[in-house]
Order: sequence, then C-alpha cells, then structure tokens
Amino acid sequence: MSGFAADVVTLFPELFPGPLGTSVIGRGLIEQRWSLRTTQLRDFATDRHRTVDDTPAGGGPGMVLKADILARAIDAVSPSGDGRPRLLMSPRGRPLTQVYARELALGAGVVIVCGRFEGVDQRVIEARELTEISIGDYVLAGGEVAAMVLLEAVVRLIPGVLGGAESHADESFETGLLEYPHYTRPQSFEGREIPAMLISGDHGKIEKWRRAEADALTRARRPDLLK
Amino acid sequence: MSGFAADVVTLFPELFPGPLGTSVIGRGLIEQRWSLRTTQLRDFATDRHRTVDDTPAGGGPGMVLKADILARAIDAVSPSGDGRPRLLMSPRGRPLTQVYARELALGAGVVIVCGRFEGVDQRVIEARELTEISIGDYVLAGGEVAAMVLLEAVVRLIPGVLGGAESHADESFETGLLEYPHYTRPQSFEGREIPAMLISGDHGKIEKWRRAEADALTRARRPDLLK
Repeated sequence: MSGFAADVVTLFPELFPGPLGTSVIGRGLIEQRWSLRTTQLRDFATDRHRTVDDTPAGGGPGMVLKADILARAIDAVSPSGDGRPRLLMSPRGRPLTQVYARELALGAGVVIVCGRFEGVDQRVIEARELTEISIGDYVLAGGEVAAMVLLEAVVRLIPGVLGGAESHADESFETGLLEYPHYTRPQSFEGREIPAMLISGDHGKIEKWRRAEADALTRARRPDLLK
Repeated sequence: MSGFAADVVTLFPELFPGPLGTSVIGRGLIEQRWSLRTTQLRDFATDRHRTVDDTPAGGGPGMVLKADILARAIDAVSPSGDGRPRLLMSPRGRPLTQVYARELALGAGVVIVCGRFEGVDQRVIEARELTEISIGDYVLAGGEVAAMVLLEAVVRLIPGVLGGAESHADESFETGLLEYPHYTRPQSFEGREIPAMLISGDHGKIEKWRRAEADALTRARRPDLLK
C-alpha cells in the first residue's frame, strides 16, 4: 500500500470515515494519499456474547477493556514488525501537538486503539507498546472522536492533501504563535472597517503588522507558548 | 425547550450528529437530556452562487469566512438575549478544559460556530461576541470535529447522561491527577499478573495504592498539572 495507512480498532467502526470523508481530508482518501481501515474489536471476543470488557480488579465504577481480546485485535491489524506507531487515545497520554502531527504525517501511518468505558487493561498497553495520546485536558465518552481529531490534524499535513492555495505556513503553532486576525470584504461591516494597513498594498508593512498582531495575541492569550 | 440546547453553525451539517448519535451521548439525545440543531451557513448567503467566503484583505493563502453572512446565520439561531455562550472553534482560542466543560454542562446550552478555510473575519468575532475555544495545540481542517469533541465532553457531564455505573469521580482531571491504571480478568495475561494489591480485598489500601499510582503517573507525564 502506498501513502499513509491508518488502522483504527474500535467498538464503533460505523462512525468512520464520518467527518474524515469530507472536504480536503475526504478528497485525500479518494485520491489514495492516505487509507483508512477500521476493525471491530468485538470480532475478537471469544465467547458467544462477544464480551470485550469486565469489571475492574479492586472494584470501582465502569468496565475495563480486556487485555487478551484487545491484544488479539492489535496483533491482527499490526503484527510484530509493523513499523507504524501504535497509539491509544487516552486523557492520560502525551498531549497531541502540531509538531507531533507533522512527525506522524511523514511516517508510514498509525494504528489507533479507541478506548471506551472506564479504560483499558494496563497490561496490554505495556505488552503491545501502545503510546497513549491525549488530544486535550478533558474526558470524552470514548476514543473515536479523538482518533478523528488526530487523523484530521495529521492527514492535512500529508504532502499533496492541501492544495497550493491552502498553504499552512502562517497557521497557529507553525510559527510558534497564534494566527493573526483575518478580514475580507465587505470593507465596512456594521460600522467596523477593515484595518487601513491591510488595504495599503505595502506587503512588507502588512507582513510586519500581522507578525505584531500574532505576537500580541499570543502574549495575551497563551503566554505559555512563548516559553 | 428543556435540557441543554446545542446549536451548530456549519458548512457540513450532514456530519451531525455522527459520533454524537452513538453510545451514552446518543442515548442522551434520544432521551432529550440535550438537543442538537444544525444550521447550514450557506443558506445565509445572498448571491446565487451561495458564496460564504472571500480572499483575505492584505493578501495571503486561503479564503476567509465573510462577516456579514456569518452574522446573519448567528442572528437567526441566537438572537440577542439568548443567554447561551457563543463559541467559535479555533486554535487561537482559550483551551478547552474539564473545568470549562463542567461549567458549560450546568448551563442552558451553547451556540457553536465551526470555522473552515483560513479563518473567520475578525469583525464578526467581535460584533457577535464569539468566544474562541481551542481543543488543543494543533490545526484541523475545520471546526466540525472540534465541535463534536466539545459537545461530547460537555454532554456526558449533564446530569443523567451517564448511568450510575459510569461515575466520573475518579477520572483524569476530576481529581487534578491523571487516572490510575486499570486491570481486569484474566488474572494472568502473557505472564503479566494483576497487581496483588488489587485482589487483596482491602479497599482502604486499594484506594491508597491507586492514589499513589495516579500521583506518580501525573508527576512523570504531566508535571504541569501539579502546579
């Protein structure tokens, strides 16, 4: 297979590609710049109820995804020797960043495990060397939407997915700063004008103004990014 | 309307509810613990090509969503006097946190604008008092999946959406720590045993062990959370 190969192990394969089938990301899928395969975790259960979870050892609320069933599913989609990183979407994980998305976009693909319920048995995380990745400091109902976020962030960075008119050189995080404000026609909106600088035609000054705006915005909202 | 009312303004209304129609979040929708209405931004265009964007003032790549069209859409779904916060999903925004998700879950709902293309005209952000919210430090192709993330994080916190067996008291961020590791049967998995402590039956000691594990994990992975 050429291009970036994404595998997703989930209890809800019917949610994919979903939003990933739309717009530039979906066009990249059709153009085979990346591929997406989903695997139903439940198909790897071994009892007739197709059980994938059990109560947590030591007590507590919720259910835990079983190590043995999940390991079988991972081994089926990513046998040993598969060079792609194996990721588990989890709020306990390493935060997803633009730098990491760019790193993944240059690789062969990813294997993504979507957690559900209270969590995943710790032993399969260790035995299959899953890297826990968090998309942010909040808790979701499952890993599926988080997997979509990761794939959307990564796939748009695969060469050829964004057209030339959709460059990302100035975007938030690519310069280390939040992006400068945008304006377009009409010239006057409810008495608010487009800043005169932007219609001056002086591209050097416009560039300087945008950089100053991006810098001021970052200082005001996200001083942590400037460290 | 009773419960939490979510409005989403988007160029891709067909993506909703999508993942939000599944599992506990989807059950909450059916049980009317929350409601979801999508609005096609393009319906508020005024020309026969249904144009919603234009080139950026001052030059540069991509297209910018027009202030006048977006303002008309927002005014239609959220007239002045609507007490719900108006959010714009944007990497320039305030980072979404579990604390903010909980705050939103206690309110009347949200109005969410999904950006696309290079961005949104700054003047409509100001004129309609949109609060920019970021789900993480990376760039997506549009705001739709980000809106799903925000709604999933918020809706699961609406009282009654999670069943009693799915408590979230111990989850990551709720205690200020990442969550402790989980284990379930089988007792032995590829030679790895469930930690003996967890099958001791001593609930006081188990609680203490879990707290120590959560603390060690947070120190190792996310010392920033301990500040």
